[in-house]
Amino acid sequence: MLRRFFPVFDWGREYSRANAFSDLSAAVIVTVMLIPQSLAYAMLAGLPPEVGLYASILPLVAYAVFGTSRVLAVGPVAVVSLMTASTIGAASLPDGVSVITAAVTLAVMSGVMLLVMGIFRLGFLASFLSHPVISGFITASAILIAVSQLKHILGIEIAGETLPESVVALIGGIGNVHVPTMIIGAGCLAFLFWARCRLKSTLKRLGIGDGIAGFLTKAGPVLAVIVSIVAVWAMDLAPGGVRIVGDIPQGLPGLSLPSFDLGLIGQFAVPALLISMIGFVESVSVAQTLAAKRRQRIVPDQELVALGASNLVAGFSGGYPVTGGFARSVVNYDAGAQTPAAGAFTAIGIGVATLYLTPYLYFLPQATLAATIIVAVLSLVDIGVIKRTWAYSRSDFSALLTTIVVTLIFGVEPGVISGVVLSLALYLHRTSRPHIAVVGLLPGSEHFRNVLRHPVATGKRVLSIRLDESLYFANCRFLEDRIYALVAQNREVRDVVLMCPAVNEIDASGLESLEEINHRLKDSGVRFHLSEVKGPVMDRLQKSSFPDHLNGRIFLSHYAALAELDPELVAQSDGGAVA
Amino acid sequence: MLRRFFPVFDWGREYSRANAFSDLSAAVIVTVMLIPQSLAYAMLAGLPPEVGLYASILPLVAYAVFGTSRVLAVGPVAVVSLMTASTIGAASLPDGVSVITAAVTLAVMSGVMLLVMGIFRLGFLASFLSHPVISGFITASAILIAVSQLKHILGIEIAGETLPESVVALIGGIGNVHVPTMIIGAGCLAFLFWARCRLKSTLKRLGIGDGIAGFLTKAGPVLAVIVSIVAVWAMDLAPGGVRIVGDIPQGLPGLSLPSFDLGLIGQFAVPALLISMIGFVESVSVAQTLAAKRRQRIVPDQELVALGASNLVAGFSGGYPVTGGFARSVVNYDAGAQTPAAGAFTAIGIGVATLYLTPYLYFLPQATLAATIIVAVLSLVDIGVIKRTWAYSRSDFSALLTTIVVTLIFGVEPGVISGVVLSLALYLHRTSRPHIAVVGLLPGSEHFRNVLRHPVATGKRVLSIRLDESLYFANCRFLEDRIYALVAQNREVRDVVLMCPAVNEIDASGLESLEEINHRLKDSGVRFHLSEVKGPVMDRLQKSSFPDHLNGRIFLSHYAALAELDPELVAQSDGGAVA
Repeated sequence: MLRRFFPVFDWGREYSRANAFSDLSAAVIVTVMLIPQSLAYAMLAGLPPEVGLYASILPLVAYAVFGTSRVLAVGPVAVVSLMTASTIGAASLPDGVSVITAAVTLAVMSGVMLLVMGIFRLGFLASFLSHPVISGFITASAILIAVSQLKHILGIEIAGETLPESVVALIGGIGNVHVPTMIIGAGCLAFLFWARCRLKSTLKRLGIGDGIAGFLTKAGPVLAVIVSIVAVWAMDLAPGGVRIVGDIPQGLPGLSLPSFDLGLIGQFAVPALLISMIGFVESVSVAQTLAAKRRQRIVPDQELVALGASNLVAGFSGGYPVTGGFARSVVNYDAGAQTPAAGAFTAIGIGVATLYLTPYLYFLPQATLAATIIVAVLSLVDIGVIKRTWAYSRSDFSALLTTIVVTLIFGVEPGVISGVVLSLALYLHRTSRPHIAVVGLLPGSEHFRNVLRHPVATGKRVLSIRLDESLYFANCRFLEDRIYALVAQNREVRDVVLMCPAVNEIDASGLESLEEINHRLKDSGVRFHLSEVKGPVMDRLQKSSFPDHLNGRIFLSHYAALAELDPELVAQSDGGAVA
Repeated sequence: MLRRFFPVFDWGREYSRANAFSDLSAAVIVTVMLIPQSLAYAMLAGLPPEVGLYASILPLVAYAVFGTSRVLAVGPVAVVSLMTASTIGAASLPDGVSVITAAVTLAVMSGVMLLVMGIFRLGFLASFLSHPVISGFITASAILIAVSQLKHILGIEIAGETLPESVVALIGGIGNVHVPTMIIGAGCLAFLFWARCRLKSTLKRLGIGDGIAGFLTKAGPVLAVIVSIVAVWAMDLAPGGVRIVGDIPQGLPGLSLPSFDLGLIGQFAVPALLISMIGFVESVSVAQTLAAKRRQRIVPDQELVALGASNLVAGFSGGYPVTGGFARSVVNYDAGAQTPAAGAFTAIGIGVATLYLTPYLYFLPQATLAATIIVAVLSLVDIGVIKRTWAYSRSDFSALLTTIVVTLIFGVEPGVISGVVLSLALYLHRTSRPHIAVVGLLPGSEHFRNVLRHPVATGKRVLSIRLDESLYFANCRFLEDRIYALVAQNREVRDVVLMCPAVNEIDASGLESLEEINHRLKDSGVRFHLSEVKGPVMDRLQKSSFPDHLNGRIFLSHYAALAELDPELVAQSDGGAVA
């Protein structure tokens, strides 16, 4: 029990000096990478930079205690930051509630939701988010984020949450471009794109080893940060209008409390749930990818507990919603992290940075942070998945496209919700029309096959129907309609036998439909039978009074049913086989 | 095409004098029954009595033209009247919009929705309403309706939409009971209950034939109406405080127009959709029950068109939302109606009543109408279904109970919505954990069976897994988790073969999961294979690049896979068979 909820007792008992060394060196690398990222994502979320740093300290410790992944690195991530910005931007905050308190409230709510889902093992709820919906949502979010950061690159003041708004505002503001800001922003963008595509191969050509070259490439943003701080400071650009990060409070975060305003909590309920679910799905997917490489195991329901605890402490320590990040987890893995202790060491690193490094970040231009965000999120845009989904399934494609278009035009929350609703509707539509075949006897055998595909023998008095799906609320009316239509068309029919070898479940609606079919067929003078009902399904049926009402019988095999109901047909078929 | 959308051309061409006689006599009986019902349901809906009559004229003609059922009788029904009352009561009506215009707007919106669903063949959407949700909703609505009518029986003035409100108001108002009203109400109630249970057998004991006895029993409410009108008139009870129906405008309905206020349309969107769906499900279920008795066929998508047209004309002729009613359709059937022309004749009957009969209804006490409503709806309360569902399936039971409790406490709209959401969540929960078996070779055969149930042979290097469900977004993560967990537990495994004989579909999420599994297993040095993939599923997979990426192979049979991957095991098993 203790080890189920506290995986730290699992790996902690066998923690070795070798582990500690690997974890420490990974932590140093991740810390260096996390500092600019935390500042940038806080800016994206519309929050002061220190909030990003605070969200990268205690949550890592909480994950180290509760998480089942050995290498997942939690903290602020792009998509969740965008969702935070959009939630707080759309909310009407009560008097006395600052955006920071709103962010704290959102983190605590998200933490509570994740914890509750974890304790009640509700991880399956994430299944509502199909792959096309998630890919579409992330692609659309990345585009929204990149466009939203252009204003920082161009040094203009605009607002706009959805794509049309942002584009209109950008075009309107194009005359006010601040040239020094744009030079810094565009320079950083160009450098970061070059670094991402070419730096590693260039370094390797210069004779630098693979590992170090990879690390230096990942540290590209840090170099951009340092160079632009120095440039702004040396050329004294800030008074000329280049926006800088400015004062960041020095010191560790204190205790923050969320708002208990019921109106605010009501407004945040749906967004907090979406943030939790999207964060959880992303995080588990990263964790599983990395765990598979070392044949380790992720327990999704326990991940809910771990992310819940991380968000709770994020909130109470002045941060905002966090989740497992892809880029940083991969860096952590590549740098050799062996246990979640690497996360705790990273937390110490960020804590030290918060204590001593913040004064040096004073001159950091916002354009540099915007450039790091743009480069990071554009790697999330996946055009390939759109093409692949189109080729594979029109139904999934329509869910994907709807999610993208609605997210871009109406924002993140309607985007996810419309995608989820559409996927569910399409799925129900598909299973609501299951394959139902009229079957006949394959001459000389005991097998029954679809009359449309095989030369089989059928009689006029017995109608054999095979249902190729479980019978549940979404498809039982379809089965009813089909059976009534078939019986209405074949006026000589006196017996209907429903063959159920592929029926894995019959729910209460299915049972009700069977009762109705039985009742209505009886009214029109037709007997209703079942055949080849699976064991567990039969056990269930026995609990109801259906077998007593049934106006026909339940046969073990369909052949036995036909032998009894239409002995002539069976005899002819057997005769055919002998002849 | 014409006959698809206008079934009237189907039965109209062969209409005979015998049909006309049957239809006319059925129409007389149904008309007599419909007059008090229409007045009563209008009162339940919170509308003037003539609105109920108007809703029983043109909608019947529209259904006769478009409907596929030969005997369905449309008009005002109890549950839809309650939903109308609750929708209009909860809405804030714009200035100048009366409750009558609101009802007309609701009918027109409901008509448009049904028509659109019919034209686009969206009848499957009704599948969202599972049997337990519908039974629960109808039972709870019937209780709400019965309680809401008690005030008319007791002659007190109270308001209250949900059960707790109504009960509190009733208890508070118990001191103000109006004794003459209560005597009429309780008397009618007692008579109607007695008539329902005993009248038929009493009449038969008096030597009256079965058919006539049945008709007289059904006409019980008419007798109650006549006797109470006479009583109120003769004893001059109205000035003493017995509430009566009063003036009903004489004459046929004129053209009414709905409100085009966008705010009102927005408020009515969800309620109108629920009214349409609940009405549709009820109506189709009645129509199918009756059609089955004569081996006739109902076309659900065309029923949407017919009910849509009925609601449209209900709205434009000053009525309110209508649907196919159970009691009146059964009466119509029993009375021998042969074609929908019976409905058109009934419409003429109600029209004549509106022209000439309304003055005689002036003294009709509301308590009598309330008593007919209570007796009618209490037959809808089905305690048996609650017990049966409990015995059959806990999951369906929880959807049923939630619907009942939420409807009683929070009202009709939250009741239906919570039931639908819960059914969907429970269904996804069940299919999100499909049966996944590790299988082994049954010695001496080519069959593979679950290792937990059969004495089968397995090797340590090859893991055979059978998935007993289609692979789609709700369960693909579960499959991933299971495979990763199994591979993490069995460190010697070098090959994983997924056996897919029961996989009817793989959606884009499932494909993505297979890609992930393939990718991650490759990372941990394990090959991933598929076996026994069905034809249509394989065709789909060929459209993707999955077969090219697959780090193992796709085998036609699982035995072929094992023969290739673990020849030793297969040889041993064959040897065993020979020995």
